[in-house]
Amino acid sequence: MPYGEDECTKRLQSKFAQLFETEVTVFPVTTGTAANALALSVVVPPFGAIYCHSSAHINVDECGAPEFYTGGAKLLTIPGSNGKLYAQDLKNAIALSGKGVVHHVQPTAISITQSTEAGTVYSIDEVKQIAEIARNYHLSLHMDGARFANAVVSLGCSPADITWRCGVDMLCFGATKNGAMAAEAVIFFNRDLAQTFGYRRKRSGHLISKMRFLSAQLEAYITNDLWLNNAAHANAMANKLVTGLTNLPGVELCYPVNANEIFIRLPETIIAGLIADGFGFYRWEGEHSTIVRLVTAFDTKAESVDALIKAAYFHSIMVSSDRI
Amino acid sequence: MPYGEDECTKRLQSKFAQLFETEVTVFPVTTGTAANALALSVVVPPFGAIYCHSSAHINVDECGAPEFYTGGAKLLTIPGSNGKLYAQDLKNAIALSGKGVVHHVQPTAISITQSTEAGTVYSIDEVKQIAEIARNYHLSLHMDGARFANAVVSLGCSPADITWRCGVDMLCFGATKNGAMAAEAVIFFNRDLAQTFGYRRKRSGHLISKMRFLSAQLEAYITNDLWLNNAAHANAMANKLVTGLTNLPGVELCYPVNANEIFIRLPETIIAGLIADGFGFYRWEGEHSTIVRLVTAFDTKAESVDALIKAAYFHSIMVSSDRI
Amino acid sequence: MPYGEDECTKRLQSKFAQLFETEVTVFPVTTGTAANALALSVVVPPFGAIYCHSSAHINVDECGAPEFYTGGAKLLTIPGSNGKLYAQDLKNAIALSGKGVVHHVQPTAISITQSTEAGTVYSIDEVKQIAEIARNYHLSLHMDGARFANAVVSLGCSPADITWRCGVDMLCFGATKNGAMAAEAVIFFNRDLAQTFGYRRKRSGHLISKMRFLSAQLEAYITNDLWLNNAAHANAMANKLVTGLTNLPGVELCYPVNANEIFIRLPETIIAGLIADGFGFYRWEGEHSTIVRLVTAFDTKAESVDALIKAAYFHSIMVSSDRI
Amino acid sequence: MPYGEDECTKRLQSKFAQLFETEVTVFPVTTGTAANALALSVVVPPFGAIYCHSSAHINVDECGAPEFYTGGAKLLTIPGSNGKLYAQDLKNAIALSGKGVVHHVQPTAISITQSTEAGTVYSIDEVKQIAEIARNYHLSLHMDGARFANAVVSLGCSPADITWRCGVDMLCFGATKNGAMAAEAVIFFNRDLAQTFGYRRKRSGHLISKMRFLSAQLEAYITNDLWLNNAAHANAMANKLVTGLTNLPGVELCYPVNANEIFIRLPETIIAGLIADGFGFYRWEGEHSTIVRLVTAFDTKAESVDALIKAAYFHSIMVSSDRI
Repeated sequence: MPYGEDECTKRLQSKFAQLFETEVTVFPVTTGTAANALALSVVVPPFGAIYCHSSAHINVDECGAPEFYTGGAKLLTIPGSNGKLYAQDLKNAIALSGKGVVHHVQPTAISITQSTEAGTVYSIDEVKQIAEIARNYHLSLHMDGARFANAVVSLGCSPADITWRCGVDMLCFGATKNGAMAAEAVIFFNRDLAQTFGYRRKRSGHLISKMRFLSAQLEAYITNDLWLNNAAHANAMANKLVTGLTNLPGVELCYPVNANEIFIRLPETIIAGLIADGFGFYRWEGEHSTIVRLVTAFDTKAESVDALIKAAYFHSIMVSSDRI
Repeated sequence: MPYGEDECTKRLQSKFAQLFETEVTVFPVTTGTAANALALSVVVPPFGAIYCHSSAHINVDECGAPEFYTGGAKLLTIPGSNGKLYAQDLKNAIALSGKGVVHHVQPTAISITQSTEAGTVYSIDEVKQIAEIARNYHLSLHMDGARFANAVVSLGCSPADITWRCGVDMLCFGATKNGAMAAEAVIFFNRDLAQTFGYRRKRSGHLISKMRFLSAQLEAYITNDLWLNNAAHANAMANKLVTGLTNLPGVELCYPVNANEIFIRLPETIIAGLIADGFGFYRWEGEHSTIVRLVTAFDTKAESVDALIKAAYFHSIMVSSDRI
Repeated sequence: MPYGEDECTKRLQSKFAQLFETEVTVFPVTTGTAANALALSVVVPPFGAIYCHSSAHINVDECGAPEFYTGGAKLLTIPGSNGKLYAQDLKNAIALSGKGVVHHVQPTAISITQSTEAGTVYSIDEVKQIAEIARNYHLSLHMDGARFANAVVSLGCSPADITWRCGVDMLCFGATKNGAMAAEAVIFFNRDLAQTFGYRRKRSGHLISKMRFLSAQLEAYITNDLWLNNAAHANAMANKLVTGLTNLPGVELCYPVNANEIFIRLPETIIAGLIADGFGFYRWEGEHSTIVRLVTAFDTKAESVDALIKAAYFHSIMVSSDRI
Repeated sequence: MPYGEDECTKRLQSKFAQLFETEVTVFPVTTGTAANALALSVVVPPFGAIYCHSSAHINVDECGAPEFYTGGAKLLTIPGSNGKLYAQDLKNAIALSGKGVVHHVQPTAISITQSTEAGTVYSIDEVKQIAEIARNYHLSLHMDGARFANAVVSLGCSPADITWRCGVDMLCFGATKNGAMAAEAVIFFNRDLAQTFGYRRKRSGHLISKMRFLSAQLEAYITNDLWLNNAAHANAMANKLVTGLTNLPGVELCYPVNANEIFIRLPETIIAGLIADGFGFYRWEGEHSTIVRLVTAFDTKAESVDALIKAAYFHSIMVSSDRI
C-alpha cells in the first residue's frame, strides 16, 4: 500500500512509542529542513513568533523554510554562549514581546537544537527550565534533533528523559546525518498537535508514495541500538580528535565538545597545510577565518582521525622551526 | 560532496541533455507533487493564474500544493473530453480572463499532463496548438510528466518531439511510478526560468543532502532505455487487460486507453466479485460508482492480468446464468 | 486614542449588537475585499477549501485575495441558477470532496453573497438550508454582504433573521456601495472565531490609526435607518428601471431583479444608442456581449432613470422604423 | 470613476513628479504598514532578505506584515547608534550572508526609515553611502517615510535630494501622522519596479473603490507646502520641548532630536507626576522604564508644550525640596 499505509510505516508508531516509553505520533519525512518547518507550521500561526538561538539551523541554514511553512511567522533570535538558549534570556525576551498587542508578532513556540549548532549538549535541567517558560507562556516547545542521537549518547540518558519528560512537545528525530540515506521522523509527544500534519506534509510534497523505503530506514535505525552505536562512535572520534589537536600550541576550542562537532581555532599555517594535504572542512566565519568546523560521523575511521592529527602536528612543527 | 555537488548529480545534466537533444537544467526531487509545485512556483506570481484540466493532479490530488508554493495563485480549470485541454477552449478562457485588469488573477502558465489523468495521450499536434496559445499570451507551458515514459512509448516519438520542440518550457519527468524508489526530475528547457529553483527547493525542504542516492535512481532509469522498456511493458499489459475486459457484456471504456491507465465501467457483480477475489483497485467516482480505475506498471505480470480477466469472465458468466 | 481605542469605535460594538439583536464582535475595515479575505482567513487553514458560487466576488473580482489571506486555500466553485448556491449541489460537492483524505484540500467554509452577484436575494429558507449543510459538515458559513442592505430591504426582514438566526457565522457588512466613503464591518456572530482577527488585520495593513474616521461612517450609516433608507431608494430605482425597460421589444432579463442590480439583454442598437448618449455601464460577458449590467445606488435620481428609459425607447423606435 | 480612474488620482502622478523633480509612479494607500509591505513585496522574493535596523517599524510594529506580503521573506536586523543603519555594518553583514548559496535567504533589499524610529535624521551623505552598498550588491533601497516631512524640514533639502538623487528606489511617503485622515503614497523612482504593484494592492484589499477621497487628502497635503509647514511646526514644538526639559536635573536625552520625536530619560518622580497631571505618553522599554517617548505633531499647541515643561519643573522641584 502506498502513501504510508504499508506495514513498515505502521510499525513505526509502536516502535517509537517503545523507544520513547510513551504514546507518540510519528511522521517520516526525507529532510531535516522539512521536518523542522512542518513541525513548527502546525503550532505557529502566520502572525506568530518562534524563539530560537541566533545560530539555529532553522534561522541560518534553511533558506527561510520556517517562514515559508508557517505563512510568514517570525524567528526571534536570542544569542547565548555555547550555542544555547538560556531560560532567563528567553523570559526577558518574552516579557518585552508585547503578547496580546496587535502590533507585534505573537510568541507561540520555542525551538532548541539538541545537540546544538555549536556541538554542545543541553543538560536535562537546562531543557526543563526552558520548558517551564514554554508552559508558563503557553508556547510549544520544539526540539530540532538533527544530531539527537549524539546528544543522548553524550548525556547517557534515555530518549524520554531529555524530551517529553522535560516538557518537549515535538522532536525532529534525525537519522540522515547518523547513517540513513534520507530519513527523519517528526515525533509528536503532544499528540493533539499532530492533527493537521498529514495535510501539510502532502501539500508540501513530502508525502512519499513508496513510503516503505523511507520507513525501513527508520526502523533499522532504531533497532538493536544501531542509532546509539553509530552516535557513540562519532562522539568517540570527536573526542579523540579534540584530544589530539588541543595539545598543539596556538590552538583554541571555541566551545566545549559534547558531541560530534568541533569548532576550533587553528594557526593559519596548520589550516593551509591540512587543506594542501587534501583534508576537507569549512572555515566557519568567512573565507579568512581561522576557526574551522570538524565533524565526525558514524563512519569516520580512527585512522583518518590519526592522520589528521599527525598532519596537524607536522604543520605545527614546521611553523615552530621556521621561527627559529 | 553533499547537496547535489556529487559527480552523479552533475552527470545528470549532460545525460538528460543527451536524452532530450538540447541543453537543459535538471533538478532531482523526491515526489511528483514537489516537482510540479516547485516548477510552477518559478513562473507564477502570487497573483497569477494557471490553466489546467479540471481533473489535473495539481488541481485535485495535491492538497493545494501549487497554491502553497506560488503563494496563493489560482488554478483556473477547463473541462475537456478524454482528460485533455484543447487549444480553442484555452483561447476562449484567456480572452475572458481580464488580462491586465487588477481585479482579476493574471494568466501566467498552462499546465498539461502527459499522459493525462484519463489515461490518454496528447498528440504532438495537440501540444503544439496549446504551446502556440502559450506563446501568444506570454504564458509558460508546464508538462506534468508523472507518466511521461508511457506517453513517449505510446507516441513512438523522441522525448524532444513531445516537449521543447512543441514549445514546452518545463517538464516534470517522473520515475517513481515507473520503477524508481522516489525520484522525479524537474527539467527546464527554457533555462532562464531555472534561476530561482535552487532556493525554492531548499526552502521547501526538498534539497536532499545525500543527493547521490536520488540521482543514481534517475541515472539508472534513463540508461539503456530502462525507462522506455518499463513503460512499454506497462502499456502492453494495459492493452492486454483492455482487450480481455472489453469482450465482456455490459462493459464500457470511459476513455481511449493510450498508456497504462484504464477507466472502465463494469457491471457491479463483476466489481464485487473481483474485490471478493482479492483484487485491489479504486472505484473512481464515489463509493457506489461502477467505474473503476485499473493501472498497470513496470512490474505487472502477464499472469496477473490473465488472472484478473479470467476472474472477470467467471463473475460475468455467473451474472448471465443467474438471469436464466 | 488611535488604532480603534477611541470612543466611537467602542460604541460600534453595542450599536451593532442592538442592530442584530445579539452580542457580536465588530471590526471596521476599508474595503469589501479586505473584509471578505480577513474573515475567511480566521477559519480556513492553508489546506482548506471554501465553497462558493462560480460568480462570487471572492472568486472572480478580488485578484486572489482569499488565497492570499488564507495562505493558499482553494475556492471550490459551484454553478447555480440566478447566482445562487443551492443546498443540494453543495451536499453533492462535499460528498465527493474527500474529507479526511490527505490528498485533497479540506472543506472548511461556505461563502454566499447577499444580495448575489446576479442581483438576486437568498430567501431565509435558502440560507437556512445552506447553514444546515454547514453545520452537518462542521463548516463555517460566511456571508459577503457588500449589498446586504439591499437584500434586507428586499426581504423585508430584520438583519438578524437573514444572518445568525439562519446560522450565518460571520457577515461582511458593506457600507461603501450604499453611501459611505470607504467603510465595511466584519461582524462575528460566532464570537469565538474573532480571536485572531486583530492580528490578521494589523498584519495586512488594515488597522487604520485614526480609526474614528472609519467608525464614524459606520455609526452614521446604521443610525436612524439611514442604511435601509438608502437601500430602499436604490432598490426602488432598480424596480423603476426594470419596469421601464422590459416593456421594450427584444429585451430580456437575465435574472429576477430582487435588489439594485439589473442584468439585461438589450438589442445592440439600444446599447449603442445609450452609449452614444453618454450613459455609462458595462457589457457583462465580453466586449461584444449584448448583456449589460445596470446598477442603481443610494444617490440615483429618478430623473436619471427616466432619462435612460426614454432614451432606450427612442433608440428602440428608431430600430423599428428602420425596419419599415 | 472608481478604483483610481478618477481625475484627482490621475493628477497625483504629475503633482508628485513636480514635487520630486522627476518622473515617478505613485500609488495611494491608507496605512503605512500597507505601504511598506506592498512596496517591499514587489522586489523581495519569498526566499529574499531585507536588511533593516533592529528598531525598524517594519521589524517591530507591523505584526509581520513584510513577511506576509513577501510570502515569508526574512528581515535581517542590524543594530546601530541613534536608530540608524550604517554603510559599513551593512557591508559586513552582506559579506557574511552567503549570497548565491541556496542554504541562506538571499539579500534583495535594504530598508531605512527617515526620520528614524529614534527621532534622528539620516544625512544626505549617510543615505548615499547606503545606496552605494545597495547598488554594489544589486539590492533595492526602500525608504519608510512615515515621518518623511519632518526629515525634509530638518535637513532643509529638497525631497529629491534625500531620495532618488541619493539612490532610493522607492519611498513610502507618509501623510497620516502629519495631518491626513488616512493617506500614504508609495512612490516608485525606479518605475520598472512598479509593474506588479497594482495587482498586489488589489489582492491585499488595499484598492479603495472611491479612491478620490484618498487622493484628495494627498493632493491637499502636497499643495502650497502644507506638508512642510505642518512638519516644521511639529519639529519646532519638539525643539521647544527638548530645550525646556533638558534644563532639568537628572534628565538625559537618548538620541539627538532631529525631528518630532523625543526619547528622554526622566526621573521617575517627574514621570509619575506628569501622568498624575493627565499627560499621556509611553514608557519606552517596558512598564518600569524611565525612558519616555514624546511626540509632537502638526497640531501640537505651544501652550501644551509650555504646560508640560512647567509641570515637569514643578515635579522636579518637589523632588529637590523633598531631599532637603
